Amino acid sequence: MFRLAQRIKFSGLAPSRSVRSLFTADKYPVKRGNYSELNAEDIKYFESFLNSKDLLTDKKDLDAVNVDWMQKYRGQSKLLLKPRSVSEVSKILKHCHDRKLAVVPQGGNTGLVGGSVPVFDEIVISLANLNKIRKFDDVSGTLTVDAGVILQTADEWLRERGYIFPLDLGAKGSCQIGGNVATNAGGLRLLRYGSLHGTVLGIEAVLPNGDIFNGLSTLRKDNTGLDLKQLFIGSEGSIGIITGVSVLCPPKSNSVNVAWLGLDSYEAVQKTFKLAKNALGEILSSFECVDRASMEVVDAALKKHDMEAQQPLESMHPYQILIETSGSNSEHDEQKLNAFLENSMENELVVDGVVAQDEGQIQALWQWREGISESSGKWGGVYKYDVSLPLPVMWDLVKAVENRLIERNLQSKTDSTKPVYATIGYGHIGDGNLHLNVCVREYTKEVEDVLEPFVFEFIAKHNGSVSAEHGVGFQKVHALQYSKDAGALKLIKEVKNMFDPHGIMNPYKFIE
Amino acid sequence: MFRLAQRIKFSGLAPSRSVRSLFTADKYPVKRGNYSELNAEDIKYFESFLNSKDLLTDKKDLDAVNVDWMQKYRGQSKLLLKPRSVSEVSKILKHCHDRKLAVVPQGGNTGLVGGSVPVFDEIVISLANLNKIRKFDDVSGTLTVDAGVILQTADEWLRERGYIFPLDLGAKGSCQIGGNVATNAGGLRLLRYGSLHGTVLGIEAVLPNGDIFNGLSTLRKDNTGLDLKQLFIGSEGSIGIITGVSVLCPPKSNSVNVAWLGLDSYEAVQKTFKLAKNALGEILSSFECVDRASMEVVDAALKKHDMEAQQPLESMHPYQILIETSGSNSEHDEQKLNAFLENSMENELVVDGVVAQDEGQIQALWQWREGISESSGKWGGVYKYDVSLPLPVMWDLVKAVENRLIERNLQSKTDSTKPVYATIGYGHIGDGNLHLNVCVREYTKEVEDVLEPFVFEFIAKHNGSVSAEHGVGFQKVHALQYSKDAGALKLIKEVKNMFDPHGIMNPYKFIE
Repeated sequence: MFRLAQRIKFSGLAPSRSVRSLFTADKYPVKRGNYSELNAEDIKYFESFLNSKDLLTDKKDLDAVNVDWMQKYRGQSKLLLKPRSVSEVSKILKHCHDRKLAVVPQGGNTGLVGGSVPVFDEIVISLANLNKIRKFDDVSGTLTVDAGVILQTADEWLRERGYIFPLDLGAKGSCQIGGNVATNAGGLRLLRYGSLHGTVLGIEAVLPNGDIFNGLSTLRKDNTGLDLKQLFIGSEGSIGIITGVSVLCPPKSNSVNVAWLGLDSYEAVQKTFKLAKNALGEILSSFECVDRASMEVVDAALKKHDMEAQQPLESMHPYQILIETSGSNSEHDEQKLNAFLENSMENELVVDGVVAQDEGQIQALWQWREGISESSGKWGGVYKYDVSLPLPVMWDLVKAVENRLIERNLQSKTDSTKPVYATIGYGHIGDGNLHLNVCVREYTKEVEDVLEPFVFEFIAKHNGSVSAEHGVGFQKVHALQYSKDAGALKLIKEVKNMFDPHGIMNPYKFIE
Repeated sequence: MFRLAQRIKFSGLAPSRSVRSLFTADKYPVKRGNYSELNAEDIKYFESFLNSKDLLTDKKDLDAVNVDWMQKYRGQSKLLLKPRSVSEVSKILKHCHDRKLAVVPQGGNTGLVGGSVPVFDEIVISLANLNKIRKFDDVSGTLTVDAGVILQTADEWLRERGYIFPLDLGAKGSCQIGGNVATNAGGLRLLRYGSLHGTVLGIEAVLPNGDIFNGLSTLRKDNTGLDLKQLFIGSEGSIGIITGVSVLCPPKSNSVNVAWLGLDSYEAVQKTFKLAKNALGEILSSFECVDRASMEVVDAALKKHDMEAQQPLESMHPYQILIETSGSNSEHDEQKLNAFLENSMENELVVDGVVAQDEGQIQALWQWREGISESSGKWGGVYKYDVSLPLPVMWDLVKAVENRLIERNLQSKTDSTKPVYATIGYGHIGDGNLHLNVCVREYTKEVEDVLEPFVFEFIAKHNGSVSAEHGVGFQKVHALQYSKDAGALKLIKEVKNMFDPHGIMNPYKFIE
């Protein structure tokens, strides 16, 4: 019944380094804050304690950190600092605080909302040189790392010791753990291991005034005062710079299974989700759904690059789901998975499917899912919406958006004069998180007017979130009102001001 | 090999309503803050919008809320308010803020650190009348409740719908969910379902100035701004009053197994824990350890009340552990449990054991574990330390304390002129959380001097926490320095002051 999955390769699918070189400050109506300008004295001071190769002012070096991964936002920073210790971070921030110099902390710069690049001339503080694994306890599974450790590095290091990192996401090869925590990254394991608010046990951070917040506990339980570390999780560099993180890591599963299934309707997807929760219970670790348009976009993106890969299923079903189980006993897990698959086919929910037979096939199936994000930018650009919505209405949003674009004659796969190539939906059903991507040939005001505020209003109407896991950054700062009321926003602003009275931390973003 | 467990009854083991009637303010060196005194105008204002039976000034009514469950702390409040809506809570707090009247929020008043009772004449605001289940989504398992809903009520309500509350603890029959969240209760399911920082999805709270913080989201993912609801989790009434909570509830397990095992050494306990994590993996839901002294205390407490119950095991092993598994497939779970038990006995880690054969036996075994807390107060009083420590040194603390008491000739089971009856240790091995109880015939300065600061210094030396799950309250406010550095405490104080500039919220506690 179930065929083998074929391995595909997505390497080389980075976004094309294109013409979108306009400065953020020229593209968007934003005014430089009342910050000091960097001068020779500042540089001299930084040189007094930083290694010369950790202080960079060359255009080439700055070009790389001024632009985000999507090449949508471009800042004009003149200075990149790469401290090698918490004390260096502290000295830098204290000086910037005293001098009122704006800064932007930068991890792997893999964010999707323009949160990690400057808007004007903010000093870029890279955490890349804080990259040591500090300690690990192999009974409790608590890991303590510098903020700049690459997620995949930590995960591989843990796997050799029988554990995994509780977070996994497409950018794992370049994103840094400090950045993951600062943006409260969600990713592919949240359904099973929960959010970072639960798994992060401790945080060390440098406050805007240079003080060091020493909250790097490795205790699972600690009820001694307000849990301030929680504020840093998802703070996007607005109240300090995370320099160290300790996290509770789950044991590596002895047995991992991945199935890719075809379904005819979104109703069947929802029913299958309920069935999976029941039948797979504690071993269900992912339940991802992609629509036909998503799979077509990956297919076309591969062809565009003269690559080809067999689709996981023979037919292009309207909805396809990836189910992953992770457990401690392969025999038990297979029994559970088989019972679930039989049940879902008997109930005519699932109409076709493959189960990965080895690690390579597991990765191949995951690449189909993870490749969507990269593929969707291949026609010139992509409007990305990362939303939380109640399960029943998730794909109503995708359809409503596509209908609006088609009605206004803005979308076509074949007619390259139309700005929109395709409207696709995919996401983490298990977390109530949908990614709506509008793949465009060019960014136009006409398309934007169709999308906004329509998308945000739809979300607000259903009490969803305008940012499920990508964060706010520069992109969503004006959309917060659709997910938070004025009182909550005021309170956030007050807390931000308390921590950062001069407003030097990652300005123009997160909170106005 | 494994015998059946016999059911015992602990009902009636409430702490004896004894002579400890001294006011907290007379027993401890604490000075009334510069708050206004309640006057007739205030009462008149509260009467203007509260139902008359929700405003209580009778001594009898106030006696019940002025004293904590342990009868260790006794306040002198003259007014108990029991609002029935969020808007009533808001009006009360706004008035108290404007008038500078101190308040103490009270849930089920089951706390163990004197956090929920007044110290001087604070107005008691009970959440008992906010007791509705607001809504439930049976696909995602998200439950929204008023703060005053009793934990057990919610859990039973959920069980009928195939779910459970992610938190369980001994006081479940009277504690309230708002109080659980305000104190970041840990309890018996944390090993499996994680802390409330991960499972609580939303909080509605009234701020000290009467503003309503509307953070009652039911989304699993929402990255729109600082996650302020996290501050309320474990805030112990210091920054506002929680009025509503939404929480992610796990599905009820089809299969629950409980085993009670005897071990000869603490080294064997640690090895068995590692073995259990490996062999039971995702179905391990509790790993509790009690020492011989704990079991003897329960036994003696039962006899004291002319009750008797067969100990779970024939011999009084130095360490006994309760292991619970919760899974979706009883056959698989039993196989895993049996393999683990065989392995642990073959390796000579476990020397005796019973496995519960039905729900009644499961509860009976749990009662042995849960009965310790109640039993330990039966000789007059108990010094309770609820600490987080690294696993290897946990029982070093218990032994060190007992040795100090014996060396100073302060402890004896038979000689009733000695202040200390027994020193016992029990706790949640899986969470790194030890309960050290010193059961006393009377509270004496001599014993206190042996215990403190010795216990706190031991904890600080091992980077533990002086309060793992009980919180700070009145009792631990001077011990925070052993678990948090001055910078962190200063920051907590600043956040507290920002939320509560007049300091009316639960004064004399939590943070100085």
